[in-house]
Amino acid sequence: MKKRKAVVSLGHDALGYTTTEQWDAVKKTAKALADLAQTNYQLTITHSNGPQVSMIHKAMTELRRVNPDYTPVPMCVCSAMSQGYVGYDIQNSLRSEFLSRGISTPVSTILTMVTVDPYDEAFYEPNKIIGRYMTKEEADAEIQKGNYVLEVPEKGFRRIVAAPKPLDIVEIDTIRTLAEAGQAVIACGGGGIPVIEQQHILKGASAVIEKDAIAGRLAADLQADLLIILTGVEQVYKQFGSEHQEGIASMNLQEARQYIAEGQFGEGDMLPKIEAAITYLEKVPDGKVLITSISHALAAVKGKTGTVITSQ
Amino acid sequence: MKKRKAVVSLGHDALGYTTTEQWDAVKKTAKALADLAQTNYQLTITHSNGPQVSMIHKAMTELRRVNPDYTPVPMCVCSAMSQGYVGYDIQNSLRSEFLSRGISTPVSTILTMVTVDPYDEAFYEPNKIIGRYMTKEEADAEIQKGNYVLEVPEKGFRRIVAAPKPLDIVEIDTIRTLAEAGQAVIACGGGGIPVIEQQHILKGASAVIEKDAIAGRLAADLQADLLIILTGVEQVYKQFGSEHQEGIASMNLQEARQYIAEGQFGEGDMLPKIEAAITYLEKVPDGKVLITSISHALAAVKGKTGTVITSQ
Repeated sequence: MKKRKAVVSLGHDALGYTTTEQWDAVKKTAKALADLAQTNYQLTITHSNGPQVSMIHKAMTELRRVNPDYTPVPMCVCSAMSQGYVGYDIQNSLRSEFLSRGISTPVSTILTMVTVDPYDEAFYEPNKIIGRYMTKEEADAEIQKGNYVLEVPEKGFRRIVAAPKPLDIVEIDTIRTLAEAGQAVIACGGGGIPVIEQQHILKGASAVIEKDAIAGRLAADLQADLLIILTGVEQVYKQFGSEHQEGIASMNLQEARQYIAEGQFGEGDMLPKIEAAITYLEKVPDGKVLITSISHALAAVKGKTGTVITSQ
Repeated sequence: MKKRKAVVSLGHDALGYTTTEQWDAVKKTAKALADLAQTNYQLTITHSNGPQVSMIHKAMTELRRVNPDYTPVPMCVCSAMSQGYVGYDIQNSLRSEFLSRGISTPVSTILTMVTVDPYDEAFYEPNKIIGRYMTKEEADAEIQKGNYVLEVPEKGFRRIVAAPKPLDIVEIDTIRTLAEAGQAVIACGGGGIPVIEQQHILKGASAVIEKDAIAGRLAADLQADLLIILTGVEQVYKQFGSEHQEGIASMNLQEARQYIAEGQFGEGDMLPKIEAAITYLEKVPDGKVLITSISHALAAVKGKTGTVITSQ
C-alpha cells in the first residue's frame, strides 16, 4: 500500500534549548515520529530553530569580539548552520528509532532556502524577537550595526527581526523527489533560510520565517494528505487561558475563519498555526490538519484527541 | 541521453577561509561545476571544511567562556553546522550559475553522517591538525578537556584530532535517489559528520574524516563514471617541488601503487587523493579519475590537461 504523505511541524518543545536538552528532547520526538510513520505515513518534517539560531548568532558575535580577523556571519548563514545542527540530531535519532522498530526507511536533512518578498511589510516593522536579553551596551552595538532592538521595561533589550511571509521553497523539487520515494525528510528547518531573489541570485535576508507558515506551504506544495502541527497543548481552545476555556475537537475552514475574527487565537502562538492550516487546505481541499502535543500525537492520528481541521 | 555520474571533490581553494572569501570563491567554483554539468554529467559534490569547522568550534568555545549556561557543542555538532554553512553557499551559487545558463537542475545539500571504527588506530594517535595556533593557556584548557594538543616550537599550540578511515555513508540511499534523478547533490561535506555505531545508535565522534577518503568512497558507492578531485595544482607530479618535477598525464592502478611505494606523493597532500582514486577504481574498474585545479577542470575533462587515473 502506498504511503500517505504527512508534513509534521515541530515546535520548541520537540527540541529543547541547549545541546544536551535537544539531544534528550529529540529522542522523545523521534518516538512520536516513528509512531506516525508506522500508521503508514511518509514524513516530511520541519522544525523551529529560535534558541538554536540565537545561540549560533551569539557565538559568532563573541568570536569576532575576541578575533576581529573573522568576517561577520550574517543571520542567513547562522540559519543555515542551525539547520545542520538541528537536522543532525533529528535525523540521527529518527534513524535509530526506525531501526529499533525494524524500519529501514532512509532519513535525511535537506538544507532549504525560502524566498521572501523584499517589499514584505514585515521588513518595515520587524516584530519577531530573537535571542536572549541584552544589556544597554549590547543593544547599542546592535543598533550601530543597523539592527532593530526592542526595550522590555525592567528586563533589558532584545533583538527583533522581520518575519516576512514565505514565497517559494527553493529546494521543493528535491524534497518532493524524496517524499515520492517514501523517504523521511527533514526540510525547511527554522522556516528555511530566508533569501531574496534578484535575477538568478538569491541574497540572504536579515529575517526569520515563521515555521508554521512554512509548514502550511510545504504541505500544500507536496499535496500532503495530512499536516500535523505538534505544539505545547493537546488541543486548540476557545477562550484559551480563561476559566471558560474549551477544547475544539474539530473545525472546518469557515469555523476557523470565524474564530480568527473573534480573536480566539493568540498572535505568534495559535494564530499562525491556524493560518498555516488555512493555507494548506485552500490548496489541498481533501487534506486534514491535526494540532496537538507530541505526547498526544499518536492518539490524535487515531482520532482520540487533538483538533482536526478540514475544508468542510 | 542519460547523464553520466561524476563525483567532484572540492578542496580549500574552492572555498576560501572567511565568510566573504567563501562567498567569492564559491562563485568561481560554481562556474567550474556548471561547466562540468554541461558536458552531460550529474554532479555529486563533496568539499573540505577545515577553516569552517574550526571557526565554528572556536566561536562555540568563546560563547561558553562568556556564558557558561550554554552546554558544550561537540566537534560532531560543529561539523554538522559547517555542512549547513558551506552547503548553503555552494547550493546557492551553483543554482544561480545553472539558471544563468538556462539549466533547471535542482541543487541541494544532504546533511551526511559517516561511520568510523572506534578501534581505528587513528584514535590512538590523532594526527590531524585543526584550528588556529593557541596560547599555552588555551592549550592547557584543551588538554584538561581530554583533547590532544601539538606544540609547534616558537609558534604555539594546535589542537589535533583523529582522522579515522570512513566505513559507511549513512545517508547513501538518499544521495543515490537524488543522483539517479539527475539532480546536483552536495553531500559528505567536510568528509561527513563522523559517528560511531553502537547498536542502532550513532554517537558523534571527536574526529574528522579526510574529504579525499570520503570522495573515493562516495564515487565507489554511487558507481560513478568519473571522480574529479579539484585541488591547488594542475596535475599530479613526480618529484614534486624539486627541479626534476614532472607532470603525470596518466597512470593506471599499478603505476599509482608504484609511485606510492617510491614516496612520490606527500602525506596529507597528494597521497590521500591517489588513495581515494585507488579505493574508487578497485570498486568501479571502468571508472576514471581526474586530478586537476578548478581553473583547469573543463580542459581536463576534455583531455587537455590534468592527471587521469584508470584501472588499466
